[in-house]
Amino acid sequence: MSTSSTKKQLPVDKARRYLEPGPIVLVSSHYKGESDVMTLGWHSILERSPSLVGCVISKHNHSHDLIRQSKECVINLPTTELTEKVIGIGNTTGAKTDKFSEFELSTESAQQVGAPLISECYGHFECRLYDDALIDRYNYFIFEIVAARVMTEPEYPTTLHYTGDGIFMVAGEMINRRELFSDDMLD
Amino acid sequence: MSTSSTKKQLPVDKARRYLEPGPIVLVSSHYKGESDVMTLGWHSILERSPSLVGCVISKHNHSHDLIRQSKECVINLPTTELTEKVIGIGNTTGAKTDKFSEFELSTESAQQVGAPLISECYGHFECRLYDDALIDRYNYFIFEIVAARVMTEPEYPTTLHYTGDGIFMVAGEMINRRELFSDDMLD
Repeated sequence: MSTSSTKKQLPVDKARRYLEPGPIVLVSSHYKGESDVMTLGWHSILERSPSLVGCVISKHNHSHDLIRQSKECVINLPTTELTEKVIGIGNTTGAKTDKFSEFELSTESAQQVGAPLISECYGHFECRLYDDALIDRYNYFIFEIVAARVMTEPEYPTTLHYTGDGIFMVAGEMINRRELFSDDMLD
Repeated sequence: MSTSSTKKQLPVDKARRYLEPGPIVLVSSHYKGESDVMTLGWHSILERSPSLVGCVISKHNHSHDLIRQSKECVINLPTTELTEKVIGIGNTTGAKTDKFSEFELSTESAQQVGAPLISECYGHFECRLYDDALIDRYNYFIFEIVAARVMTEPEYPTTLHYTGDGIFMVAGEMINRRELFSDDMLD
């Protein structure tokens, strides 16, 4: 299990390094004394600066209202060590269960938002609601990442990528093709 | 290289199986006699039925106007065999270059849209513009997938997932955890 002492601050415009590959994430939230966590796979980077990410958070999720009311959440990045918990969290509703207790998750205070960080995760992206224009139509929340922390090692996390039907792709080999890019395409 | 004869029709609500894991895709477009193709990593599934996907297509991309005018495109799914072409396409502007010729891409007619399929790709998701509400604000196009084809094998493609800075994660091991899901969470 990771702890905060093995993590470092990440510039928010570098969040794409971890989120653009498309991993399953755990979204934690807090509103008026109640916290929840949900599993989420439908997200994408929208912009680097400001650091924007769009997430589909269904109205059927207990977290939907907590996030809509508080206008905040934390996107936590789990790795394969947490596969069973990720699935359990995705199959359980926070309306009936305290998922932090049920799945024995350790939490820490975030730096910028009220939602808790999940300590066992590789990284944490603290989010504030930036644009609610598509929430009613598509349950689509556009967040600004206002603070980020990631583990100092390994350099790349062994993330989970969901294909549906109970089957996950696990992040594989990293390949470096910098020599094929023009300088202005790198960062 | 794959050909259309090794591909099968895919129900459009199954597109998430291939797109939710977050692969780099090649988006092809066609408008008034001109075709283009671009590399894209910022996308996510928005809904299963209708089969909706959201994509960030920057105004700096020549494809932006072709797609906006034609209201159509094809999301093609490349694998590691195409890594060099994927990078080359991402580093070249269609305003100056015929990228299909430059990168020796074979094309075929799509079933439902005017944009060409790229034959060498594992799968093809034909898209019609569904909602333009966020194009001006975020270059965010919401498409409906109206037809889909994928290769009959391998069962799961070896996709590329971009982390920025010239470094890609390659799709790794598939793990089946169906036994941990409740029946209503599977499909």
